[in-house]
Amino acid sequence: MRATVIRGPQDIRVEEVPDPRIQQPTDAVVRVVNACICGSDLWAYRGVAAREAGQRIGHEFLGIVEETGPAVRGFAPGDFVVAPFVWSDGVCDYCREGLQTSCPHGGFWGQVGSDGGQGEAVRVPFADGTLVQLPKDAATDEALLPGLLALSDVMSTGHHAAVSARVRPGSTVAVVGDGAVGLCGVLAARRLGAERIIALGRHRDRTDLARAFGATDVVAERGEAAVEAVRELTGGQGAHAVLEAVGTEESMRTAVSLARDGGTVGYVGVPHGGSAGVDISQMFNRNVALAGGVAPARAYIPELLPDVLEGVIDPGAVFDRTVGLDGVPEGYRAMDERTALKVRIAF
Amino acid sequence: MRATVIRGPQDIRVEEVPDPRIQQPTDAVVRVVNACICGSDLWAYRGVAAREAGQRIGHEFLGIVEETGPAVRGFAPGDFVVAPFVWSDGVCDYCREGLQTSCPHGGFWGQVGSDGGQGEAVRVPFADGTLVQLPKDAATDEALLPGLLALSDVMSTGHHAAVSARVRPGSTVAVVGDGAVGLCGVLAARRLGAERIIALGRHRDRTDLARAFGATDVVAERGEAAVEAVRELTGGQGAHAVLEAVGTEESMRTAVSLARDGGTVGYVGVPHGGSAGVDISQMFNRNVALAGGVAPARAYIPELLPDVLEGVIDPGAVFDRTVGLDGVPEGYRAMDERTALKVRIAF
Repeated sequence: MRATVIRGPQDIRVEEVPDPRIQQPTDAVVRVVNACICGSDLWAYRGVAAREAGQRIGHEFLGIVEETGPAVRGFAPGDFVVAPFVWSDGVCDYCREGLQTSCPHGGFWGQVGSDGGQGEAVRVPFADGTLVQLPKDAATDEALLPGLLALSDVMSTGHHAAVSARVRPGSTVAVVGDGAVGLCGVLAARRLGAERIIALGRHRDRTDLARAFGATDVVAERGEAAVEAVRELTGGQGAHAVLEAVGTEESMRTAVSLARDGGTVGYVGVPHGGSAGVDISQMFNRNVALAGGVAPARAYIPELLPDVLEGVIDPGAVFDRTVGLDGVPEGYRAMDERTALKVRIAF
Repeated sequence: MRATVIRGPQDIRVEEVPDPRIQQPTDAVVRVVNACICGSDLWAYRGVAAREAGQRIGHEFLGIVEETGPAVRGFAPGDFVVAPFVWSDGVCDYCREGLQTSCPHGGFWGQVGSDGGQGEAVRVPFADGTLVQLPKDAATDEALLPGLLALSDVMSTGHHAAVSARVRPGSTVAVVGDGAVGLCGVLAARRLGAERIIALGRHRDRTDLARAFGATDVVAERGEAAVEAVRELTGGQGAHAVLEAVGTEESMRTAVSLARDGGTVGYVGVPHGGSAGVDISQMFNRNVALAGGVAPARAYIPELLPDVLEGVIDPGAVFDRTVGLDGVPEGYRAMDERTALKVRIAF
């Protein structure tokens, strides 16, 4: 089959690779229908996150089950499925508690030795613990596919930011990061009943989408000026819940500063290079909490799926470009240059 | 009157100072019955936290109301009261929400221009918002006084650590810090239903008290070895809730490492010198949260008080020495040299 590999920084290629096959009785092989490129893939693309030359890449996909191992009970060939961005065994303490990202048998699509999402097919370990069933007729519903695909990562991650930040009905929320995750955070906050949602961003196409997703205010300033602006909008107090969807030291500092005393920063921006430090003395006197991390998408998809299927939310709006598999390298370039927000790959 | 002042590092004196008097209609003047020395006072004593020469010190006290301003409604001369370690107006958004430490009119006993707790009397701003009424007959009950005094700070702060760390019935809890706050954290965790409480400490008198307060296990190791030991005790997983009651970068790192994936560190150790940084990448993949800060004792005292009065908990056991006012400088020395855990001052 053909799949996307990363050969080095800025060097994304589509190559012929071995066809996936069942290796363990709990495996499934899934033919990919839709995949996409994630903002976090850009860390590898830019050489900030190390990858082996030739490693697969991509961790978000929808697909049709082609084959299942003898121990797979919940899926059969022909099923339409969504994969969360990590696999998990479904039976350990953490999986049963809904923290599948901590499953000791879990892994990340595209890690060394595994298939990535940006390819024609994927061997899925622990299919029963990992995949989520979708309605079969949705597989050909072009209007639905982007929203379902977003459940793989960005919508679940935005939701994790909002849940971790304890967004509640009536909350005032600030969102740091105007990428797909930040925008999905806006959508998640609105879904959870936030009364006021302040999106930080300055790119018109992104802030327009933020408003469409439920942002009541947009703040174009950054850093200290953004903190000032948000305080002004909130009677000097700041936001009950702040969603941090960038992962740099500066964005984290801004996020903590935006929080109202007693508030919580829900952090989902992948920290890079150990630089995303937090100065506790900035939080101590104000009782600001910090919660979040890598989103257990597998726990959230069943909760979010009905709203996507019923059109209550459409996180698929974050995709502003669609390419075929051959267009993936160009898709990386476009996202790296910020000429695309998020690129969908249709097979 | 006579009160404790700090003249410089290691220079604690008892001096003649002006008698407190009503300055605002919302003030009360309280004659101190019991006060104490806090681990956090030692930061000033050691010169780590800056103080003006001659600044008052002490922020925990029980007393008898001597005089009230004309706007004070809830207290009258003769009332026996406990003061939380900050004053607060009782009417602002934060006070009404139970985060009195963020009251914009609040302040800290001993801050420049205010009385400290380690003196014969204290002018209490916003008496109605600040003080908590105690039964009058408790004022002469020597067995009760230490426990009531502990509500001023250490018991409320230990409780804040436990609440912030989301201790629940059945939780496994680890406590970093064997000072009075850490020990009260053990007591608070047991009170909240923790099933297993692992206290880190190596001083026999302190670990004995930890066991008396409900610790089920004691770990004498520090740093990485402590993390190993706690993982061994918890089937490799770590603690659902970790109480951080030290405030150094090392203790915070240990605390985060002790947390089970998805767990929370409740931090109440006062961070010093901006050094108590946290590496977010240590938390991200494991979804470890961080919550806490300066404890809103005023919110907790009414909840904890009945248990102290009924003998359900006796946080007063943290006091292992009692001095008169003249003995305060010696009390500081003893706590600095760790020959005393916590010193009570009886007037």
